[in-house]
Order: sequence, then C-alpha cells, then structure tokens
Amino acid sequence: MDQVTEALDNANLQQETHTMNGTNNANSSEQNVTPWDVQGEVVDGKRLGIDYEKLMHQFGCQPLSKQLIDRFERLTGKPAHPLMRRGMFYCHRDFEKILDLFEQGKPFFLYTGRGPSSDSMHLGHLVPFIFCKFLQDAFKCHLVIMMSDDEKFLFKDIELKQVQTYAKENAKDIIAVGFDPERTFIFMNTEYMGRMYETVVQVQRLINFNQASSVFGFTEASSIGKVAYPATQIATAFSQAFPHLFKGSKTVPCLIPYAIDQDPYFRLSRDIAHRLGSPKPASICSQFFPALQGYHTKMSASDDNSAIFLTDTMGKIKTKVNKYAFSGGGDTLDLHRQNGGNCDVDIPYQYLRFFLDDDEELARIKSEYSSGRMLTGEIKAKCIECLQKLVADYQEKRKQVTDDILDYFMSIRPVA
Amino acid sequence: MDQVTEALDNANLQQETHTMNGTNNANSSEQNVTPWDVQGEVVDGKRLGIDYEKLMHQFGCQPLSKQLIDRFERLTGKPAHPLMRRGMFYCHRDFEKILDLFEQGKPFFLYTGRGPSSDSMHLGHLVPFIFCKFLQDAFKCHLVIMMSDDEKFLFKDIELKQVQTYAKENAKDIIAVGFDPERTFIFMNTEYMGRMYETVVQVQRLINFNQASSVFGFTEASSIGKVAYPATQIATAFSQAFPHLFKGSKTVPCLIPYAIDQDPYFRLSRDIAHRLGSPKPASICSQFFPALQGYHTKMSASDDNSAIFLTDTMGKIKTKVNKYAFSGGGDTLDLHRQNGGNCDVDIPYQYLRFFLDDDEELARIKSEYSSGRMLTGEIKAKCIECLQKLVADYQEKRKQVTDDILDYFMSIRPVA
Repeated sequence: MDQVTEALDNANLQQETHTMNGTNNANSSEQNVTPWDVQGEVVDGKRLGIDYEKLMHQFGCQPLSKQLIDRFERLTGKPAHPLMRRGMFYCHRDFEKILDLFEQGKPFFLYTGRGPSSDSMHLGHLVPFIFCKFLQDAFKCHLVIMMSDDEKFLFKDIELKQVQTYAKENAKDIIAVGFDPERTFIFMNTEYMGRMYETVVQVQRLINFNQASSVFGFTEASSIGKVAYPATQIATAFSQAFPHLFKGSKTVPCLIPYAIDQDPYFRLSRDIAHRLGSPKPASICSQFFPALQGYHTKMSASDDNSAIFLTDTMGKIKTKVNKYAFSGGGDTLDLHRQNGGNCDVDIPYQYLRFFLDDDEELARIKSEYSSGRMLTGEIKAKCIECLQKLVADYQEKRKQVTDDILDYFMSIRPVA
Repeated sequence: MDQVTEALDNANLQQETHTMNGTNNANSSEQNVTPWDVQGEVVDGKRLGIDYEKLMHQFGCQPLSKQLIDRFERLTGKPAHPLMRRGMFYCHRDFEKILDLFEQGKPFFLYTGRGPSSDSMHLGHLVPFIFCKFLQDAFKCHLVIMMSDDEKFLFKDIELKQVQTYAKENAKDIIAVGFDPERTFIFMNTEYMGRMYETVVQVQRLINFNQASSVFGFTEASSIGKVAYPATQIATAFSQAFPHLFKGSKTVPCLIPYAIDQDPYFRLSRDIAHRLGSPKPASICSQFFPALQGYHTKMSASDDNSAIFLTDTMGKIKTKVNKYAFSGGGDTLDLHRQNGGNCDVDIPYQYLRFFLDDDEELARIKSEYSSGRMLTGEIKAKCIECLQKLVADYQEKRKQVTDDILDYFMSIRPVA
C-alpha cells in the first residue's frame, strides 16, 4: 500500500510537472522531467539547472551513500566508477539488496536500453552504457539491452523500417562500448515481442489508462500504441520476459541503471511486481549529461549544436566545445582572474567530471579554474583533449563491430 | 472522408448503445450490441428480439441481396449455403468486390477467429466456422483463424495459462469442422505476436484513445491492454500480418465473415486501411445464434442452460431443447390449433432454420407449425433430431483431431 500511495503521489507530481510544460516559455515555470522532456525550472525568465535533490524526493529514491559505495567496493574488489563516486549516479532503490544477492552468490540481471530515434548517438547516450559495462564487469552478471524501436515508431514521426535500421546501427554503437558477448543479450522490440508478449500482456492487464495517463501524461488523443507501450518497457524488468536466459523463472531480480527521466516506468514496475509474483526491480539513477549550452537541459540528438556525436571528427569536437560549450568563467579576463570560474555551471568542467578518470588531475583543474588561475580557453582545451581521446578510442572499437558480431549479440541463446 | 464521418456517426451510436447498458434492467432501454454484450431493446419491461435491420443501418452495411447471392452461385458453381439464402448471413461490405476478384482469378483471403474463454464451444460458435468452411470450399482460398487468447486474458478474469489451454482445445474443435489443412493457418496471439507485431504497432499508431473508447466503450479505468487490443484484431485483416503466407504483400484483400457484434473492429479497420497502404477489408455479417431462452440475446457459453455444447450427450440435447427452448406455440393446445405457432420467435424452428439443410422439409415444418397442425412437442422433436445428428457427426470428427494435426494447422508454413 505504501508503494501505491507513493506512486499516486508521484503520479500527481509528475502530471503537474507535465502540465507545466505548456507554460515553459512564460516568465517562470517549474522544472519538467519526463521520459520525453527535460527542462530546469524557470524563475524570473531565467532557466535554472535541474534540481536533482528535488527529483530524488519526488520520485521516492534514496541517495547513493558513501557507505553503500564503500560496501560495493569491498564486495566486488573494484574501485567505484568515477560516475558513482563523483555523484553522477546519485540515487537508487534497493541497490543494497542487489549487493546482498551478490554477496550471497545469488543471480540477478542488469537491464538498460536505447530508443533508436536517430543513427547518431552522442556522448550523453554513452554514459549509462559505460556504467553498465562497469557493473557487468564488477558483478559478472547477465545484461539485457532493449532497443525500443516500437517506442520510437509510436512516439515520433518516423517510419518503422527507418527506426529498425537505426536500432541495428545503434546496437553496434552500444556493442563498441565493450560488453561481454557471453553475458549480454541485445534485442529489438519488433523482433523480440514474440518471446516477451506473454509478460507484456500480463503487465498490460495491471495498468489502467488513468494510471498510465497520470504517470506519463497521456491524453485521450494519445494513440493506443503510446498508451500500451509502457507495459513493454516495464515487462523487460522481469526475468520471465527472457525464458531463454532464465528458464522461465519469474524471480530473478533485476537492477536497472538509468537517467532519472526514465524513472516513471520503473516506479510503476515496482508497484505491480508483486502481482506478477516477481521481485521489485532495483534501480540506480543518474543525473543527465548536460547539453553544450548548459546544465538546464540534457544533451539531445535532435539539436546538432547541443551534442557531441560519437561520429564527430576531432576537429568538430574542438569547434563545438570552443564555440558552444557554456562557460562558467568570468565575463572578462580581469573578472575571471579576480572571481574565478564557476565549475558548477561550466560545461567543459562538467564533461571532464564525467569522463576524466584521473581524480587528482580533476581536482587540480577544479582548483585552478575556480581560483581564476586557469582560463576558459585552457579548461576548454583540457576538455577537448579528454573528449577527443574518448571518441577516438571509441571510434576505433566501433569499426570492429561487424554484422556477424551484431547477430551474435542479438541471437536467442543461453547466456552464461 | 465519407468513411471517417460514417465511423464517427457509428462510434457515437455505438457509444450511446453501450452507455445504455447500465439501464438495461429499467423498464425500457435501447438494444445493446457490442463485442462483449448483446441485448435486444426493452420496451415497457419486455425484452424484444434484436433489430437486425436497424443494426445494419447503424453500422453502415449493405443487405446481402438476391442478385449478389445469384452472382455468387453463378461464379462459384455452388448453390448458396442455407445460412446465406435464408438470411442468417444478411449483410456485407464490399462482398461484390470479393466476387470481382474471384471472377478475375485474383487472390484474397478469409479471416475468422475465436476468443477462447472456455473449453466448451457451443452450437452458436460453430455457425461462422461452418460458413467459413463453405466459403473456403467455394473460393479455394487461404483462411486465417485467430485464437485471441490475449483478448480473453485481458477482458476476463482468467489466468493466461488457462486461456492458452482453452485456445488449443478450441482450435481442435474448429479443425473438426473440416477445414482444408493446405489452405488454413490457425494461430494463437501470444504465440504468433512476434510475426504480426510490426503490423500491430502500425495499427496502434493510427487509433487514439478517444476513438477506441467511443467505438468500444473503454473508460479511463480500462486496462491499457484492453485499450490496445483492438489493434491486434484489426491488424489480422491485413495480409502483411502473415508474411509467410503472402510474402510480405500489403495488398491481398481480406473477407471476414462474422456475427454482427464484431462489426466495430472491422469498421475501424476500413477507416485506417488506406493509411497502411492496404485495401479495405470486406465483410459478410450474420445474425446471432439465439439462446435457448429466446431471440433477444445470443447463445452464451457462460450460461449452461442457454447453450447446447458441442460436447453435450444426445440425452442432454434432448433435455435442454425440451426443457429450455423458448416456444412460439400457443399457450394451450386449443389456442395453438386455432392460431398456430409463431416461427419468428420459436427457438426450435429457428435452430432448424440454421441447421436443417433440406429447404422443402423446412418449408413444410414452417407451414405445419404456423398453421397449428404441428405441435410444440413435435417441432421440438424435429429440432432435437436435427441437432443430435449434427452434434453426433461433429463429435465423430472431433475425436480424430490429434495433437499432431493441431500442430500442423498452427505451424508456420507456406499455405497453398
């Protein structure tokens, strides 16, 4: 019952923020975070950054505490990933239960996914996959990756064949992150629906239009495909959706790393889990990877100038960072030397925080930039160097992903 | 646009009749015909028979004319089935276009189905299958038969495994009607969804909650599974849902024989056909097979005393007809001799009209009974004899349907 009340409260909040969407151009509006839109609060005409603390409380998650991270390190024998220890993955539900299972040698699986709305993935898309690979390496567990081509077909004005082509290309992009072929199953909904449909209809029966519309903001004008789609994304969090991996078991627990905007799906999955006879899915949630333009919204593939794509050339990366990356530096050289740069809003610093492995170097950059000793041009150069290396390494790996490798990851097979 | 207007008008009417449902116990109410409920109009507390003429006009169908039936006979070289020439199949959409195709030697396919809500099918369920078999024999064409286990799971309080078991048993019952194994494909939605899901999402995107709720009476409390289900029943009317039969073609036309309560699905399928790049499905619609209790509602499997089941013993058939079949005879012997029986409401006569092949014998019975020369007991004996023969013959064929035969009909294979 607690969960139901929680869900209803959250649903109301969610509906409220969703409704606010229409007023986002006015002089002030609340922050709006849904699976389809992410916008910070507007106060007196100025767009603020996302208030993650507020989101965590709205959605009913727990902070990812120092103790929990320490326990993760102790149990896995691995240092926590920078994305964890620097707080980009910052809250969770039942992550401690997943650690219990790991400690007891009991099985669980990871679930992530991608909505293939274009053939060019950007750096922000990479974040959850980098983190999933890290968790898979640490836990040595199954990972299922959903390519939700049906979702993108239903929610965007793209033809099905086109979305399916994107899905295959994106799956190759994802494979290049380095997942373990013996533990990873990638599937595309229109191809895989046959095997998971039984689970999907069971989920569909447990959610009514009222609930779906308050959680996701559907209206009476929404297509019945949109209305039903959440059941597919939710069904995947239950092991019975993968009979070839879990021999039909309904009780293998699931951990889902995701950016916090996807939370409505998984909050709902927890509310209905007991009625499926399955454990509540656990989650670990990240902040968004910010757009070049600033911290108030996430990087978006539909805005070429907001994003650094995985296919961008080294020159393009340099130009984009220099030209578009929002700077937290002073307005003039003198002011910068005097007051220092603001790392909290400085996009080059924020990108380094996501991708620069070396903690000491990051701390040094922060100290230099905050004090005004390091200039905007200099921190941008550091950022460009870091991103160029990341993308060049990635592009090298991406070249090696053949159709055969893709077919292997997507084949129906028992996974270790 | 005509179709859209037509659909909206029908949708409104449909919604109206559906809404009337709540008042069916009052002193008067309109007739209510939906895929889930069939009730005649109530006037001054008395339930009337279904007004089929009115339904045909509401739904925008055309009468199945003598000329059309003559043309069918001329083209196929077969006498029209009694169900056609006696007006039980009484209206249609585009049946003349199907005859054009047949005349030109062009392909089309038949589509029928069954919602497997119990393991006991009754005589009423047999009617569309008997007629489909006749059409298949006449046209020598493909037939697809949908077992909508997902529908029954979503709309009734039955577990999925149970519905699936019913579906397999019902499929055997259907096979016993004598379909051509080389031209018939039977599928169960939870098994087949993988192959038709692409078509289903394309249909889902074209129907919004408003349309679905006005056509089918969904409310905000309806599960998202119910809301989305119509897309599945509709998708099956398009040849692209069967790539193994039609090599991916979107343009093989479909003819659907069904009882008129299923019309909302197929009216909607015609409205969206052009947006799928496919021809509008044609239909040929029947009146309901009446319950033993009378002509105001259809035979229902959930009311044991309203139905004669295909598994009933000869003794049980006799008892049910004698005990429950509504009689149009006079209240006393004298009144009956004087005024005669009313064949229009007499259930034994009506059953003979459905199942007695011999036109002359049927005419003789009608004349004898209407004039009062034949008594209620006598016409019931005629009916019992006819039904016993039908059911005994059927049971003999049903015994021969093995699991292997079922598997063959349900296997993914090219069909002639």
